[in-house]
Amino acid sequence: MLSDNISRDENYLLHFAGQSVTALAEEYGTPLYLMDEQRIRGNMRMYTKAFAENFLPGSRPLFASKAASFKAIYRIAKDEGMGVDCVSCGEIATALAADFPAGDIYFHGNCKTDADIRYAVERGVGCFVVDNADELLALERIAAGLGVKQRVLLRLSPGIDPHTYAEVSTGMVDSKFGAAVETGQAMELLKLSLAQPHLLTEGVHCHVGSQVFDEDVYERTIDIMLPFMAQVRKETGVTLPVLNMGGGYGVRYRESDKSVDIPGRIAAVAEHFRALCAELDFPEPKMLMEPGRSIVADAGMTVYTVGAVKHIPGYKSYVIVDGGMGDNPRYALYKAPYTVYHAGKGGVMMLCDLAGRCCESGDMLQPKITLPADTCRGDLVCVATTGAYNYSMASNYNRLGRPPVVMLSDKGNYVAVKRESIDELLGLDN
Amino acid sequence: MLSDNISRDENYLLHFAGQSVTALAEEYGTPLYLMDEQRIRGNMRMYTKAFAENFLPGSRPLFASKAASFKAIYRIAKDEGMGVDCVSCGEIATALAADFPAGDIYFHGNCKTDADIRYAVERGVGCFVVDNADELLALERIAAGLGVKQRVLLRLSPGIDPHTYAEVSTGMVDSKFGAAVETGQAMELLKLSLAQPHLLTEGVHCHVGSQVFDEDVYERTIDIMLPFMAQVRKETGVTLPVLNMGGGYGVRYRESDKSVDIPGRIAAVAEHFRALCAELDFPEPKMLMEPGRSIVADAGMTVYTVGAVKHIPGYKSYVIVDGGMGDNPRYALYKAPYTVYHAGKGGVMMLCDLAGRCCESGDMLQPKITLPADTCRGDLVCVATTGAYNYSMASNYNRLGRPPVVMLSDKGNYVAVKRESIDELLGLDN
Repeated sequence: MLSDNISRDENYLLHFAGQSVTALAEEYGTPLYLMDEQRIRGNMRMYTKAFAENFLPGSRPLFASKAASFKAIYRIAKDEGMGVDCVSCGEIATALAADFPAGDIYFHGNCKTDADIRYAVERGVGCFVVDNADELLALERIAAGLGVKQRVLLRLSPGIDPHTYAEVSTGMVDSKFGAAVETGQAMELLKLSLAQPHLLTEGVHCHVGSQVFDEDVYERTIDIMLPFMAQVRKETGVTLPVLNMGGGYGVRYRESDKSVDIPGRIAAVAEHFRALCAELDFPEPKMLMEPGRSIVADAGMTVYTVGAVKHIPGYKSYVIVDGGMGDNPRYALYKAPYTVYHAGKGGVMMLCDLAGRCCESGDMLQPKITLPADTCRGDLVCVATTGAYNYSMASNYNRLGRPPVVMLSDKGNYVAVKRESIDELLGLDN
Repeated sequence: MLSDNISRDENYLLHFAGQSVTALAEEYGTPLYLMDEQRIRGNMRMYTKAFAENFLPGSRPLFASKAASFKAIYRIAKDEGMGVDCVSCGEIATALAADFPAGDIYFHGNCKTDADIRYAVERGVGCFVVDNADELLALERIAAGLGVKQRVLLRLSPGIDPHTYAEVSTGMVDSKFGAAVETGQAMELLKLSLAQPHLLTEGVHCHVGSQVFDEDVYERTIDIMLPFMAQVRKETGVTLPVLNMGGGYGVRYRESDKSVDIPGRIAAVAEHFRALCAELDFPEPKMLMEPGRSIVADAGMTVYTVGAVKHIPGYKSYVIVDGGMGDNPRYALYKAPYTVYHAGKGGVMMLCDLAGRCCESGDMLQPKITLPADTCRGDLVCVATTGAYNYSMASNYNRLGRPPVVMLSDKGNYVAVKRESIDELLGLDN
């Protein structure tokens, strides 16, 4: 199995987080997002432990909550001592509604409106990750109006190609995010920030991309960022105390994907980091990092009911299920790979495409997979590793309600997000 | 201007449907979907008139409501004498909530669950467009249980390549939709349907794709479908009275796109159709068609506020706005082209990418456009032709609320869909 929270019992029934997927589908209906709370906590602890062991006190991982944003996640993050990265007032509001401490929120995004800035400053959001000069000046003006000195990090673009797919590669010079080191604009933004009386410039941030497998991406990132920080010290006399490396260790969507030893990687990054600090004679900054996908992806599974099986002789076979690009747009967007399991059958397999129910040919969950040859209407089919960027990217395309998120836990399962009803779909219509 | 409902006044302010976009943005905020009610009505009338002039009584266009599904649209469709094509219980419920007659609804989709089928049959939905044998048998069972004789059309795959983009090309033999004529499966499905005591098989349906510009696509489709109907008569003695050609005349997203003379095309299709009916000695069936995009696309415009402008020397410039792939995922999904207008500035232009606010590099609204060189934070920028597949595909990615849909009308503007608030975003969380 792809992950050790997926197994089959003696009757070949699929289990996730130790529970029968079939029984869960009967209880909650399909389509259904399942999340494994212990796996989320385990992933968070892996990061917090690695940070405690490898970096200065005050260093910490922040959960990149755009990967999965709903109240229960922030409660878990608070429990586990993670900070969080929020990218909108909606995410901030969700965190606060779950009693997540405002001071532990880092507010990201490349287009914060005045209303967004005011909302976050008024609520005491700990730190802004400022993307550009327009935002910087708006934040200074609003912080001044509210009589606040706001902590900020500055988002820089280090010019690193993380060799991930283009849509999630975010750190190259021509990125829409941040100010480029290479062009001198990063230094300009930094000096502008230091000149603002209501901003406390704590450090710099970068994010080279998501779903990163390359061995040395963070080392290469540090090789740009630390010398930049040393240059800042040289040009301004200011020693910045924080470096935020952003997110992104890769997760396994398929058996053939590499496994990343995250604690091992973090230790290697830390070693490289300390060596370079020594070489530059630069006091070791506190380190922040923003894992999202690698916290929640393998804690998720989506369960669908088969509505039709089609064999087109000479062409291909389809297994069509009661969900699709509405609840998981990642294949439609990126041709993202996934592993698919039948919930209860084995035996002779067939090659088929797992298609969704939306009225659009692009509504595909995964092509060229194998499922049992006797798969039929009413069977349950599961897509693994859907904990990241599935619920959070879900739409109501075709006017379909979004599935519920059921959190599986030793201490009792609970509905973290309710199923969206037809009444709710109609709720905003006049 | 791309469409005659877009203009500029003497102060160079952009107008849509005769109204100042700047004034509308001030009243309703941004991001904002605008829709031009008169344009929707005009497009609907273009089709209903062409159908009345060219086909037998009982022939009619059905609005493919997945292009834009909210209550106001169904009210307009009812007013204009259009039938509607719905693809889910959510769409059916929305139509019924707007007092749209159930009997004028055609229920599509390649994965109707038992619950969906029961919902639609119980509410008296006029006609099922049955996609496959699994659905057919479930519908027979449920209709029998409810003591109903249900009208059906059968979705066939005619094996036509409409030369549109792959994600919306739906009529090829290897499509996930329908039963293929070429493989003999269409005839099997048809005979199976005729054998069901609680189904009234009225005819056949196909849909070769969306955004179709090719001159002769519907002629080629008819060349497959009518001989198939003649073959059905020969093999079963049944003369099917209805042919549904599906949807899809292309709309202009850019100045360089061809303009389609839809009434002229429909007249040409009708001529071809009647000639082939005569040649096959087949009584002319009633004709149905399912325009969606060409009813609503050019009736829509999205208004954004600029949050940042970035120039990366040696690379590119970005104009970044307060919306993006959340409210319009079509560039992220298909690299769909759009035309972009500044709401109030002209003069010297710059080449730039119009990027969204989502924390993802793929969040692009349109690359390589021109906007005024002095575009700055706070300016309004408008994307034209967003009436189809924007609101209906919108998500809450990055936990952003969806924009409101404001219907512009001579008789007074009104909010067709309210702006989604933070409270509503949190409404399903436990």
